[in-house]
Amino acid sequence: MRLPLSVAEERAGVLVEALPYIQAFRGAVVVVKYGGNAMVDAELAKAVAADVVLLRAVGLRPVVVHGGGPQISDLMERLGKVPEFRDGLRVTDAETVDIARMVLVGKVNRDIVSAINVHGPLAVGIAGEDAGLILASARHPDLGFVGDVAAVNPGIVHKLLAEDLIPVVSTIGSDAVGQAYNINADTVAGALAAALGAEKAIFLTDIAGLLTDLDDPASLVSRIDAAELDAMIESGGLSGGMIPKVAAAADAVRNGVGSAHLLDGRIPHVLLLELFSDEGIGTMITSGELELERVGA
Amino acid sequence: MRLPLSVAEERAGVLVEALPYIQAFRGAVVVVKYGGNAMVDAELAKAVAADVVLLRAVGLRPVVVHGGGPQISDLMERLGKVPEFRDGLRVTDAETVDIARMVLVGKVNRDIVSAINVHGPLAVGIAGEDAGLILASARHPDLGFVGDVAAVNPGIVHKLLAEDLIPVVSTIGSDAVGQAYNINADTVAGALAAALGAEKAIFLTDIAGLLTDLDDPASLVSRIDAAELDAMIESGGLSGGMIPKVAAAADAVRNGVGSAHLLDGRIPHVLLLELFSDEGIGTMITSGELELERVGA
Amino acid sequence: MRLPLSVAEERAGVLVEALPYIQAFRGAVVVVKYGGNAMVDAELAKAVAADVVLLRAVGLRPVVVHGGGPQISDLMERLGKVPEFRDGLRVTDAETVDIARMVLVGKVNRDIVSAINVHGPLAVGIAGEDAGLILASARHPDLGFVGDVAAVNPGIVHKLLAEDLIPVVSTIGSDAVGQAYNINADTVAGALAAALGAEKAIFLTDIAGLLTDLDDPASLVSRIDAAELDAMIESGGLSGGMIPKVAAAADAVRNGVGSAHLLDGRIPHVLLLELFSDEGIGTMITSGELELERVGA
Amino acid sequence: MRLPLSVAEERAGVLVEALPYIQAFRGAVVVVKYGGNAMVDAELAKAVAADVVLLRAVGLRPVVVHGGGPQISDLMERLGKVPEFRDGLRVTDAETVDIARMVLVGKVNRDIVSAINVHGPLAVGIAGEDAGLILASARHPDLGFVGDVAAVNPGIVHKLLAEDLIPVVSTIGSDAVGQAYNINADTVAGALAAALGAEKAIFLTDIAGLLTDLDDPASLVSRIDAAELDAMIESGGLSGGMIPKVAAAADAVRNGVGSAHLLDGRIPHVLLLELFSDEGIGTMITSGELELERVGA
Amino acid sequence: MRLPLSVAEERAGVLVEALPYIQAFRGAVVVVKYGGNAMVDAELAKAVAADVVLLRAVGLRPVVVHGGGPQISDLMERLGKVPEFRDGLRVTDAETVDIARMVLVGKVNRDIVSAINVHGPLAVGIAGEDAGLILASARHPDLGFVGDVAAVNPGIVHKLLAEDLIPVVSTIGSDAVGQAYNINADTVAGALAAALGAEKAIFLTDIAGLLTDLDDPASLVSRIDAAELDAMIESGGLSGGMIPKVAAAADAVRNGVGSAHLLDGRIPHVLLLELFSDEGIGTMITSGELELERVGA
Amino acid sequence: MRLPLSVAEERAGVLVEALPYIQAFRGAVVVVKYGGNAMVDAELAKAVAADVVLLRAVGLRPVVVHGGGPQISDLMERLGKVPEFRDGLRVTDAETVDIARMVLVGKVNRDIVSAINVHGPLAVGIAGEDAGLILASARHPDLGFVGDVAAVNPGIVHKLLAEDLIPVVSTIGSDAVGQAYNINADTVAGALAAALGAEKAIFLTDIAGLLTDLDDPASLVSRIDAAELDAMIESGGLSGGMIPKVAAAADAVRNGVGSAHLLDGRIPHVLLLELFSDEGIGTMITSGELELERVGA
Repeated sequence: MRLPLSVAEERAGVLVEALPYIQAFRGAVVVVKYGGNAMVDAELAKAVAADVVLLRAVGLRPVVVHGGGPQISDLMERLGKVPEFRDGLRVTDAETVDIARMVLVGKVNRDIVSAINVHGPLAVGIAGEDAGLILASARHPDLGFVGDVAAVNPGIVHKLLAEDLIPVVSTIGSDAVGQAYNINADTVAGALAAALGAEKAIFLTDIAGLLTDLDDPASLVSRIDAAELDAMIESGGLSGGMIPKVAAAADAVRNGVGSAHLLDGRIPHVLLLELFSDEGIGTMITSGELELERVGA
Repeated sequence: MRLPLSVAEERAGVLVEALPYIQAFRGAVVVVKYGGNAMVDAELAKAVAADVVLLRAVGLRPVVVHGGGPQISDLMERLGKVPEFRDGLRVTDAETVDIARMVLVGKVNRDIVSAINVHGPLAVGIAGEDAGLILASARHPDLGFVGDVAAVNPGIVHKLLAEDLIPVVSTIGSDAVGQAYNINADTVAGALAAALGAEKAIFLTDIAGLLTDLDDPASLVSRIDAAELDAMIESGGLSGGMIPKVAAAADAVRNGVGSAHLLDGRIPHVLLLELFSDEGIGTMITSGELELERVGA
Repeated sequence: MRLPLSVAEERAGVLVEALPYIQAFRGAVVVVKYGGNAMVDAELAKAVAADVVLLRAVGLRPVVVHGGGPQISDLMERLGKVPEFRDGLRVTDAETVDIARMVLVGKVNRDIVSAINVHGPLAVGIAGEDAGLILASARHPDLGFVGDVAAVNPGIVHKLLAEDLIPVVSTIGSDAVGQAYNINADTVAGALAAALGAEKAIFLTDIAGLLTDLDDPASLVSRIDAAELDAMIESGGLSGGMIPKVAAAADAVRNGVGSAHLLDGRIPHVLLLELFSDEGIGTMITSGELELERVGA
Repeated sequence: MRLPLSVAEERAGVLVEALPYIQAFRGAVVVVKYGGNAMVDAELAKAVAADVVLLRAVGLRPVVVHGGGPQISDLMERLGKVPEFRDGLRVTDAETVDIARMVLVGKVNRDIVSAINVHGPLAVGIAGEDAGLILASARHPDLGFVGDVAAVNPGIVHKLLAEDLIPVVSTIGSDAVGQAYNINADTVAGALAAALGAEKAIFLTDIAGLLTDLDDPASLVSRIDAAELDAMIESGGLSGGMIPKVAAAADAVRNGVGSAHLLDGRIPHVLLLELFSDEGIGTMITSGELELERVGA
Repeated sequence: MRLPLSVAEERAGVLVEALPYIQAFRGAVVVVKYGGNAMVDAELAKAVAADVVLLRAVGLRPVVVHGGGPQISDLMERLGKVPEFRDGLRVTDAETVDIARMVLVGKVNRDIVSAINVHGPLAVGIAGEDAGLILASARHPDLGFVGDVAAVNPGIVHKLLAEDLIPVVSTIGSDAVGQAYNINADTVAGALAAALGAEKAIFLTDIAGLLTDLDDPASLVSRIDAAELDAMIESGGLSGGMIPKVAAAADAVRNGVGSAHLLDGRIPHVLLLELFSDEGIGTMITSGELELERVGA
Repeated sequence: MRLPLSVAEERAGVLVEALPYIQAFRGAVVVVKYGGNAMVDAELAKAVAADVVLLRAVGLRPVVVHGGGPQISDLMERLGKVPEFRDGLRVTDAETVDIARMVLVGKVNRDIVSAINVHGPLAVGIAGEDAGLILASARHPDLGFVGDVAAVNPGIVHKLLAEDLIPVVSTIGSDAVGQAYNINADTVAGALAAALGAEKAIFLTDIAGLLTDLDDPASLVSRIDAAELDAMIESGGLSGGMIPKVAAAADAVRNGVGSAHLLDGRIPHVLLLELFSDEGIGTMITSGELELERVGA
């Protein structure tokens, strides 16, 4: 069946708008932090996997970073352990880090890799221990094996990208003697994006973006720079759960990432819409120093 | 301004449909025969130039072939010569081929090159004499320097494509001793597409495509193979002006070109719509031997 | 301190013997199946990791394959499940394959990667799902998600080796729709060695090699070919636990692997001794068709 | 037939003298400005084409630049336009630049390309518009579309040379919005030689070289530097027609071209004699800063 | 001083004739066997060295092969040994082959290398023992260490040529256990030319070429094929000293060398005259199967 | 036969110690100066040749430098000349340098090349004249053609090493006009090692190393730096024959060679023991500035 002319013109408009972005982003590294509902909802999970495959198809280099807090708590409970948190961080004894590692590397990572590889032999799951990707240090003695990112050695990710593969990264790091640590996934995503010199770090969440009033969708901030974000954190204007995410985003752009984005992972194909159209979606965080203009601006 | 959700979903649909074509056609050579109204209407001419630049931007390798019959007649008349045609072919004496060469190489080709190069230093105009691209032979003694394509040596086109340039080809050929001939542009487009191993040969015309009844737009043939086309020509079911075009299209697909297309050059961005959506536009001609399925089919 | 002359001569002898093997094996792929006591004894585990690093240091390309049956049973029991075996194979329901995957990919593999990476950023853990390495098929409906190797796509292993990395492979495979299966590690080691065109497949065990009488160390078979091994299996002369191992070894050499070896993983540095001296250790399995002579023979 | 010894010795002498130049000039870019009688005399035109082919055969990289003033005037007159000159420059309205472009690109360039390509598929004709080669600016409002060279982007010429092709350049340039300008060919030859980092810029003329007294062949200047040439122009010691040529030559050597030469195009094979023998021919212009010694000096 | 026109035309003629040969022979391997007067006459020796350097300068790949019979006899006599010949071959005991090796490798080869290297660091002297170039076998027990060419392994010569060096080859070979043999230099030159796939094998002698009557210079044979040469040898029409030379030449062309030449080394620059002019010099030997036409023929 | 366990452990120890050195020295250039008893004793000569081949086999790049004083004297005497020395240096007239060149290049070099090439086509003999390797200057008018190293142009050695060949260097140099000079081999070895940026310069001698008391083996100096060595020479604490050797060693390390070694060439496989074990053998000379620690230290 042939296309009616009115539809044709609309389509042509979308394409004329999208093609320059496809050209501009060719070869660009995009780190996608993946979690929340997008991971639990089976349909959304499939759609994200499909979008990541499409990004690679048109020449971008996506890197997926994932967390899995609820799944860790779940296995702990099945094994009779009671999760304990201080300031939002899980107290992590030796047995807990073993459980976290099994869940993240041996279950969540596997599920994402499998969802992508339904489209072809594309994804390879790795963790911070592989080829020394993430050197971890202990955050605080009371927290046990909760880690900070001491250093990122992105060689293995560059090598997998060079082979046209899609790295899927579990956020377990290890220290110099091989002890494993569990590290916040937003933090790893930001640090990895910086170490890779990524064009974009995208955080898929289950809210519309950065809201100045959580109850008012109209309070969405479309664009903000790192300094403004710092001021907002200091003023107490952000809910607790958003802080690691926006701090990671601000650090990423301050360390050379082109821009960071908080996107609503519940919108189907939100990755494509953000990357390939003139108006963005969700909240865009920039360094504030070097304003990257959109192609169509 | 952020994008409304309903628009977002529609856009996402266009992109999800288009991206696999962009991947599939990466690196593919597409020969675009350009003429008629699309050339004379200044707005359409700009739009075609812009589309050709977009095709290159997302990794295709467009090659433009052009004619210019009316412009040749015009200069002839200004020089006091009366154009004469036999069976639709211009009788071409030594002075006429000189005029045709000046008009095609020195005027029409230049205008197309300039329209493209407004977007950057991309286009390079060549003719069949350059680096021995088209070896011509005389069609008939009575017609003078009207040529047939004796051989195509596509080296120079491959070299320009390898340098990410857009070749714009005037259809003047020369014989072994350097005598110039004027050759039908549709014929050259088809033969060049075959010699290049092009994925597609696209003929931009000023009608909707192949119509079984010229007065009835609903009689548009969406898809036809080379054998059916031959039968239609033999049965006299085609108007004279369409014959060289469809014969060139049929020859191209018989000689290895993936598919040929007759498109209505008056539709804005018709090239993008044909290449990057599931439903095509105009008439698609296939070899009939190996049916190339659309990605989404 | 300078070296006494008598010691010097002995050392020189070892080196003169070893150097030609180092030259001959340069670039050779060696698959090392690792399990049993060598994995549980912390000192031996360290020594194996160190030897694998030395092999890579002098130019070989080691690939480690591991199992972990006891560790799977252990987590099952902690989660209140009773392991059940039929003909030596674990009955594997959906929950069990999930547990097996967590243990193998998320724990055993991690421990080996960490032990190697104490020496530098060398090892990368992968499983059969990564980049489509192992396509699995169900062995028998009654066994649930116990898999056979339907196909090996060794691309990702070649790519990691090309980057001078040490792949450590967990033996979880997946089918076309992404369902995970647990596969016997000896079988995977043999099939992977064949798919890689490996020079050697080495099975580290906790007995001296192939014994015709399990109670008599003097009954060790130094060298045997695939056909003799088949005869031995058919005659019932092998204990049950040895059968998958020797069958995997025989299949490997029949499919182009230079030789397979059953080595006693309890001997420190047994890998070096086997590879770099004129007399071998343990049992060598050859194809019987093309006898590969030792360098010094 | 065997060679008599006396002839043999003479030949050997020519070769012993020529071979070091052939070695020294291997890979060197030589811009040849071509016009005047050499272009109109059919035999000389053939000889120049043959020499250019020989230069390429032994490893030089010739680039041909041509003008065509008389041919432009001729077509203007046939179209009923009266050529008008101010200070030696043609007043160029829109119609005239269209005519100039047709004549230069569509006729003179074609004739040179055809003459070279009788020897093989070697020459490719381009103009300043192709791939943005020459950015033009208007010289003076009263002169219309008479251009100056605002910038040279020699990429397309380098690319054609890298493919072992011979670029033949028409001296039409265009400005940022695609408007065509006609530019003096001597000026383009000098600027292009400088932009290419050419070893030599050679101007074929129809006099013996630079004469201090036009009526006295013995007044030929063999060698002069750019500063002396400037002084000579200022002192009024040069006839009008020579000024653009010697100014272009002086500019070329001041901008890095090894040397410029005014040669008598009426001497058969004058290019070979200049390039491959110890004594030069015509007038050599040097920068005066870095005296390039001939190999045999 | 400027060139008179009459001289200029003559020179141009030589160049027009020579340039196509320079192009045609670019990269061609030319083996030059060097001996006789050309070696003993200091001026001629310098001229041959200079010509070999010129050949390399314009892109040929010369390989020099030399003998040195008189110099061997000379050192033998100084050491009190009496040279003894059977059928023209030197009886060569262990001491004699030691002397021959010292003279050829340690004196004659050195003198040629030094003469060439006055022009730059170009020549490298090698013998048949280096990198296994020439495997020798004993010709006859009575002759001692007089060798035949059992095999040529031209790798080292190819490697030196690839580095733009000029190999100078002494014709000492060695057998599998390292015993040295003295081999006829004409024989080595022919066999090496064949093994290298040389374009030409040139034998510099001290007569005009192949004469049917040694006392009549007019009896020079300009061109002959291998079969005719065999017939001439069988008919006894050749003097003894010429036989190894013409047999080597005939073998060379039969084994793939383009042509072989017997040239009079006493003519200055005879190499240049043979290679770069339409008429040859001396005697040309062809295979008779595939007649290689001269460029100008 | 299988290996007894106690022997196995000892062997494993040697290998565990050696493998890191093999890795560390991969690609390293090692210059071996060869002379004295090791050259005259046929068995030792074979063993040194074998060791050099083993070094290359495991990836080092050995370069052999040799002298041959006794052999020169021997031929001089056979030719009736009386060797004459001043301050330990041979007075060298034109005839003597001719003899030296024949002996070194045409005999000693050939013997070493042949001994190595029994193992394969590996060695290529060169002298300082080849490709301008060593530019020589006269040491003193009274000494005739006794040379100093004026400059080293190591290109030819690098090229041979790049082709995996073993250069064997005779220490004849030549001056700008091609005159040959005889140069001390220790001096050449040190200067060549420096010019090559060698990792080690090894001098094989026939004593245990540097002894402070020649009659007391216990006085062996294991390690010394260049400054200490200078002091020792100035204090007169070294026998005359040792001075050129230790001066060459000191110069080498001062010019960038990693370390120099005086080793006892009478110990079988002394090269392997020095290079591949934690304790060294003989005397190690370092620059004193940058202490290179042994791998195991």
